[in-house]
Amino acid sequence: VAQRLEKFKTTIFTQMSILGNKHGAINLGQGFPNFDGPDFIKEAAIQAIKDGKNQYARAFGAPELNSAVASRFHQDTGLVIDPEREVTVTCGCTEAIAAAMLGLINPGDEVILFAPFYDSYEATLSMAGAKVKCITLRPPGFDIPLDELKAAVTSETRAILMNTPHNPTGKMFTREELEAIASLCIENDVIVFSDEVYDKLDFEMDHICIASLPGMYERTVTMNSLGKTFSLTGWKIGWAVAPPHLTWGIRQAHSYLTFATSTPMQAAAVAALEAPESYYTELKRDYSEKKEILVKGLKEVGFEVFPSSGTYFVVVDHTPFGFGDDVAFCEYLIKEVGVVAIPTSVFYLNPEEGKNLVRFAFCKDEETLRSAIERMKLKL
Amino acid sequence: VAQRLEKFKTTIFTQMSILGNKHGAINLGQGFPNFDGPDFIKEAAIQAIKDGKNQYARAFGAPELNSAVASRFHQDTGLVIDPEREVTVTCGCTEAIAAAMLGLINPGDEVILFAPFYDSYEATLSMAGAKVKCITLRPPGFDIPLDELKAAVTSETRAILMNTPHNPTGKMFTREELEAIASLCIENDVIVFSDEVYDKLDFEMDHICIASLPGMYERTVTMNSLGKTFSLTGWKIGWAVAPPHLTWGIRQAHSYLTFATSTPMQAAAVAALEAPESYYTELKRDYSEKKEILVKGLKEVGFEVFPSSGTYFVVVDHTPFGFGDDVAFCEYLIKEVGVVAIPTSVFYLNPEEGKNLVRFAFCKDEETLRSAIERMKLKL
Ligand SMILES: CSCCC(=O)C(=O)O
Ligand SMILES: CSCCC(=O)C(=O)O
Repeated sequence: VAQRLEKFKTTIFTQMSILGNKHGAINLGQGFPNFDGPDFIKEAAIQAIKDGKNQYARAFGAPELNSAVASRFHQDTGLVIDPEREVTVTCGCTEAIAAAMLGLINPGDEVILFAPFYDSYEATLSMAGAKVKCITLRPPGFDIPLDELKAAVTSETRAILMNTPHNPTGKMFTREELEAIASLCIENDVIVFSDEVYDKLDFEMDHICIASLPGMYERTVTMNSLGKTFSLTGWKIGWAVAPPHLTWGIRQAHSYLTFATSTPMQAAAVAALEAPESYYTELKRDYSEKKEILVKGLKEVGFEVFPSSGTYFVVVDHTPFGFGDDVAFCEYLIKEVGVVAIPTSVFYLNPEEGKNLVRFAFCKDEETLRSAIERMKLKL
Repeated sequence: VAQRLEKFKTTIFTQMSILGNKHGAINLGQGFPNFDGPDFIKEAAIQAIKDGKNQYARAFGAPELNSAVASRFHQDTGLVIDPEREVTVTCGCTEAIAAAMLGLINPGDEVILFAPFYDSYEATLSMAGAKVKCITLRPPGFDIPLDELKAAVTSETRAILMNTPHNPTGKMFTREELEAIASLCIENDVIVFSDEVYDKLDFEMDHICIASLPGMYERTVTMNSLGKTFSLTGWKIGWAVAPPHLTWGIRQAHSYLTFATSTPMQAAAVAALEAPESYYTELKRDYSEKKEILVKGLKEVGFEVFPSSGTYFVVVDHTPFGFGDDVAFCEYLIKEVGVVAIPTSVFYLNPEEGKNLVRFAFCKDEETLRSAIERMKLKL
């Protein structure tokens, strides 16, 4: 294995899902719904396949999808962008992240990350040869320590890679925090990579796209995908929205990482992005109910549950149960209790910082959530 | 844009397809069929979507697809491999190539390429920081200059990246050439990356998988995909077969480049790989007819046409028409004649070497091929 990937292991999601399957555990680990996506989107994919939309899409996205992404971005931010020059369709947001890092970051460039972070951030930054500085978000609120951030961002900083609503914690960056990030970026000529795949799962406050703040669009890559919002995580349609000078680098990397992504799925993604507002209202209502079931249950089991404002995840402190660390706890949970959760220590540069915390997902039907809670009540 | 991608332009396929569309030209450039893939595979995709196979696949491939790839590899090579540890499913062969380079090649590692080469090879080697040595295959036969190769492979060499049947030339590596490569690799402890996406389009001789030669499996990454064989280039299902120690690096890179590829398309790929032998016989018969039409036509137009043994491409020398170089010729061809071809100079480290050559694709219905020939007869 090449040095750039030596320190990384099989992704924790894969590890835990495989171990969970082996032990017949209920999977509240990896973030995928155990229910299906909406029929109208599935129908659109089926129609596209039947209609023969089965050859290469345009490398940076089928024209209709680039337009649909631009319209959605306009609805979300009020900004008018050019679908032909500012949108790149990728194989999920994971590829958008990889393409942004490999397309825009040079070896030695300093990039600031917030821990805990989604694991692909560190791995793709390593592929790009970036120098990573890490700011830790701490429970219970996982707020950004603004003084630390201020001290960290200097003229040496090339980029900040952020994620709101935030996986794994469910924290949503507040307007005040986003404005602080924005002013530091403008002052120090820093670009922002913003992973907003959970933007439509904003329960306690409205999601704010950092690209919509004054002076930020021109220095921001906003990344999103179909999977979480439309419960179709296996379709792997993502995108990056960025001004032309940043889009260029992303497209260059994308062209040689995957070239293009599935044509019929792109056609269906157009239908998805045209969903009426009511779709999102219902999605949020459904998820609010699931969240309440899980949070209440986890508290009853005896965890300290930290508030989650967005995403379909909650983070808890497992120390009441007396396990050494998060990995040991999660292994016990799978093997002896029959429930999968995700240990968070892999999401920190310094694993020690995450050893009390594990993440549960509530993108599961109510019965599954209730059974998992039952198992934990019985056996923890 | 990051330095690693600075020298690269928008892929030539994208450039030419966009220019061609603008001018209403017949596209014999980018290699995608203008007819649809088989119904039985499309039906399988539709069924998978209906059956709710719409969430994340296992990162390194849906178990059934890994097994189907292993069976196919067994049929093709006689080798028995472990689908769980030696197969990685990717977003097209393009991603397999990127994952192999980023997962297995370190900065400064020497990699040998044959020019002309598929453009993503050079770009992904640049992302990996490889030192590239290039051996040029020259018309009319595009045979490997074995003495040059022998001189090039040293103990400094980490890998050879090869492609047979060869895009753009249609050359197929002979047993003698493959044995020469094999013995150099074994002698110098070199690994082979072998892109074999056109393996089922082997017209003049039987395709030989280099991994099947004695001592080679343990040092070879064999890459393939669904697109070319099943006329579904837009589905983006590819894979890499390699021994566990090489698979590990590929999977690591893949996990963070895309994580996984489209789940319903993977289900359909299983159906595709179970196609009866007759499917391939028919495919080859159809393509032989198309090839004959194109080759005969191009000769009548006045090109020097070089023999193509495999792939759905032929390369010609355009100098009889008096254009300075391949790019100028192709621009004229699109704008004034109404036909898209691919200039080959971008497929060489030294563009001069390709300036007489352009590539035509015959993965188009007969009427399209005939119309393109008509246009060229009339206006060249
Ligand atoms: C790409 S697998 C991980 C899914 C996910 O986003 C998560 O569980 O955090
Ligand atoms: C990935 S677009 C290029 C298609 C192709 O393989 C070719 O035309 O050579």
